[in-house]
Amino acid sequence: MKCVDLNCDLGESFGNYKIGMDEEVIPLITSANVACGYHASDPVVMMKTIQMAAENGIGIGAHPGFPDLMGFGRRNMNISTKEAYAYVMYQLGALDAFCKKYGVKMQHVKPHGALYNMAGKDYSLARAVCEAVYDFDHDLILLGLTGSELIHASEAVGLKHANEFFADRAYEEDGSLVARSKAGSMITDEAEALERVIKVVKEGTVTSITGKEISLDINSICVHGDGEKALAFVKLIGERLRKENISVQALHKFI
Amino acid sequence: MKCVDLNCDLGESFGNYKIGMDEEVIPLITSANVACGYHASDPVVMMKTIQMAAENGIGIGAHPGFPDLMGFGRRNMNISTKEAYAYVMYQLGALDAFCKKYGVKMQHVKPHGALYNMAGKDYSLARAVCEAVYDFDHDLILLGLTGSELIHASEAVGLKHANEFFADRAYEEDGSLVARSKAGSMITDEAEALERVIKVVKEGTVTSITGKEISLDINSICVHGDGEKALAFVKLIGERLRKENISVQALHKFI
Amino acid sequence: MKCVDLNCDLGESFGNYKIGMDEEVIPLITSANVACGYHASDPVVMMKTIQMAAENGIGIGAHPGFPDLMGFGRRNMNISTKEAYAYVMYQLGALDAFCKKYGVKMQHVKPHGALYNMAGKDYSLARAVCEAVYDFDHDLILLGLTGSELIHASEAVGLKHANEFFADRAYEEDGSLVARSKAGSMITDEAEALERVIKVVKEGTVTSITGKEISLDINSICVHGDGEKALAFVKLIGERLRKENISVQALHKFI
Amino acid sequence: MKCVDLNCDLGESFGNYKIGMDEEVIPLITSANVACGYHASDPVVMMKTIQMAAENGIGIGAHPGFPDLMGFGRRNMNISTKEAYAYVMYQLGALDAFCKKYGVKMQHVKPHGALYNMAGKDYSLARAVCEAVYDFDHDLILLGLTGSELIHASEAVGLKHANEFFADRAYEEDGSLVARSKAGSMITDEAEALERVIKVVKEGTVTSITGKEISLDINSICVHGDGEKALAFVKLIGERLRKENISVQALHKFI
Repeated sequence: MKCVDLNCDLGESFGNYKIGMDEEVIPLITSANVACGYHASDPVVMMKTIQMAAENGIGIGAHPGFPDLMGFGRRNMNISTKEAYAYVMYQLGALDAFCKKYGVKMQHVKPHGALYNMAGKDYSLARAVCEAVYDFDHDLILLGLTGSELIHASEAVGLKHANEFFADRAYEEDGSLVARSKAGSMITDEAEALERVIKVVKEGTVTSITGKEISLDINSICVHGDGEKALAFVKLIGERLRKENISVQALHKFI
Repeated sequence: MKCVDLNCDLGESFGNYKIGMDEEVIPLITSANVACGYHASDPVVMMKTIQMAAENGIGIGAHPGFPDLMGFGRRNMNISTKEAYAYVMYQLGALDAFCKKYGVKMQHVKPHGALYNMAGKDYSLARAVCEAVYDFDHDLILLGLTGSELIHASEAVGLKHANEFFADRAYEEDGSLVARSKAGSMITDEAEALERVIKVVKEGTVTSITGKEISLDINSICVHGDGEKALAFVKLIGERLRKENISVQALHKFI
Repeated sequence: MKCVDLNCDLGESFGNYKIGMDEEVIPLITSANVACGYHASDPVVMMKTIQMAAENGIGIGAHPGFPDLMGFGRRNMNISTKEAYAYVMYQLGALDAFCKKYGVKMQHVKPHGALYNMAGKDYSLARAVCEAVYDFDHDLILLGLTGSELIHASEAVGLKHANEFFADRAYEEDGSLVARSKAGSMITDEAEALERVIKVVKEGTVTSITGKEISLDINSICVHGDGEKALAFVKLIGERLRKENISVQALHKFI
Repeated sequence: MKCVDLNCDLGESFGNYKIGMDEEVIPLITSANVACGYHASDPVVMMKTIQMAAENGIGIGAHPGFPDLMGFGRRNMNISTKEAYAYVMYQLGALDAFCKKYGVKMQHVKPHGALYNMAGKDYSLARAVCEAVYDFDHDLILLGLTGSELIHASEAVGLKHANEFFADRAYEEDGSLVARSKAGSMITDEAEALERVIKVVKEGTVTSITGKEISLDINSICVHGDGEKALAFVKLIGERLRKENISVQALHKFI
């Protein structure tokens, strides 16, 4: 039976600032990427987020990012590999304290935003990130873009990994994401996005922006919980996957 | 045989900013209170500090503080007990990641600056801090001022604790520190400070600012490593203690 | 003819985080207290906020706060008077750069949150704040709570000042606000709140929590723009004031 | 008579952290680039720095940087031009508040670290920076690397500009700095550095790393004040320049 995970970024509120509909999206997903206080979140938000995720039995992952709250970790920063290693280690430790408090084992790590994108293309940065994850706990799963340097580095350091698929993004023939600046980079039609998800999970293929069928080995679908429309789409994906006899479950159950 | 620990704040540099003479003071002390990135330090500094402390075999403690880098954690902040709990938990987890990397077990926790002072007088704040420490790892030792609310709270939650003595501070009759704003609050004469240390360790007494002999049960002497003069004084204390047949060792060896 | 100003906190979003309904509330108020990047806001948000406020012709004030983004400036911080002076000066200068860009003159300064509350009761802190405002531009109006130390200090340094009234708060007999922790501190009934506003503007009196009529000299009503309900209430206040032949206009028109 | 300015970064301390020997270097230079609280400094440090610079009559410039205190503004950050504009505007306003307090007019703006380097090569970023400077005060002088995009952009927006020379850096044939990663990028021999300074000021030429004589039109020499050796070299440069009958004075006197 085919298995797939639904992952979503959670716990991105900060102090008096609220982002996302965490309580509503948690019952619809199987894994959460939880912000760790660098690009978003604070200790009080982290504690509450882990508590909710733990109570709902979903897989919990760390979502470490750049120390750039003002830019929400979405701006490339030219940090050294040593800094990358230490920043990831710090954020994993901080989040894990709350996991232990609520009696759950951290399942995975997914770098956030610009760190995810930069490490996806820069092997030495990816390697530093993966080494920090491995040194922190070598049972963790690295969640990254199929075929990216993050996946390559996770293999090199001996980490398990999971490949994620973006329902709302177009792909190049080599399996990379079409840059957001290019026309057609976003899949805006919901029905089309849904069919792409089903196809990539069942058949392991997706139609690239050039029209060519390409192979993609997928373990997790990245979804969003930042509005009513996003929530409805997550619900739809879950229902449709189950209707297709695909087992929707947290990464650690099948990786 | 009498035992005493020498503790010093370490790892307070930040990015391009350097504070303290960590490399020089480490060989002279038995326990380090390591900043955790809130009032001081960053992940790169923390990694290096833990590495040095581990290589020298001294006891490693977390030194959590207020989220006030601009004020070095020395300004009272009216945080809630829930925030205090979460902030301490976050900082302990972050520091512990580096302890695990270097194969050492965290020994103790000593709150920093204004958090230390406020929690020393406010039981509910002290209790929140101690609960976070206990929930993180109930084998940790809470290092606080003798007779303070931190010590009371550590007893209430079931934490081991250690009492610290300040060589350069005068004491009130009730064993509390004389406020810095009062005349005579600082012991500026080195020879006098040294004699007070020896006496409090050997006899368990100190002369209060009013001239009365008071009892103080002491496990650790707080020393400083922020200059040549401070270093020389730490060396002197260590030598003198050993000459008096007092065993100078890390807290976990005798608490 | 009686005059009164309606003031509201604005521009409190930060990076990816949105707070408040600035666009909707601006047409309903006469003065804005604009966050300056310490307790909330960032330069991009400040630029946009000043642009909107300038285009709508409302009075623009600086809303300086503590350097505590995580606590939204609402937690007491024990800063020195020198720090208070410098922090206010910094924030005023930063905001004024955007005022000059959009060709408007800054009208007033209202300290934010815990700085407002602490300076309201601590004359030396209030004095430091008022001196910074005066030294920056002695034509500015200090907006504070009637009878507070902020008002006393503004008089002492030679600043114009305006007294504000809180429609949703109960008052003690001495004209101070009833502490939020006390029962009855909030006026939750909208109709009652509205009548209190009209009465304090027209007659200069309010009924204290003990039932006694007290005198309050009022120049501005503090309103909120953080939800549909708040917006509707602001609209109601404006309409009712105008119906009572009270001139609703920005502070600089009548102070 | 030839004129040249000696500029130095100042006011980079932060809270409890001290960097630089500002008091010692101020009497030796003619212009100061003062940090504005983003990559370094805080309002108290800024106030003290401006006071010292004003009392010594040297030219005062803003030294705006990236919002990256942990990286001291030395790490490339992929901010938008809108963000660059707003961040520079914010920092200029903040610093100018202290200039006005001490009765001095801000003389120039020199972007810091990675912002200086990135804007030196990216015209759109340079343009955003220069527009912010111009819009803030079109009498300001932009201080940048000869031939860089910062200089091109300052010309395009109508700002005066000054070209700076680095005594300790090697130059490519096109007048750009040799990348630090390349061998020979630093001029480590003091006597050689000194001769290069004299030659570039008197003759307007420098020997490139390839051995070719190239023309450089220079208005200011960038010097350092972060140690006894650096201070001695600044003193030496000043003495030698005066001995060569070169007038050493602040930029606004001759630009």
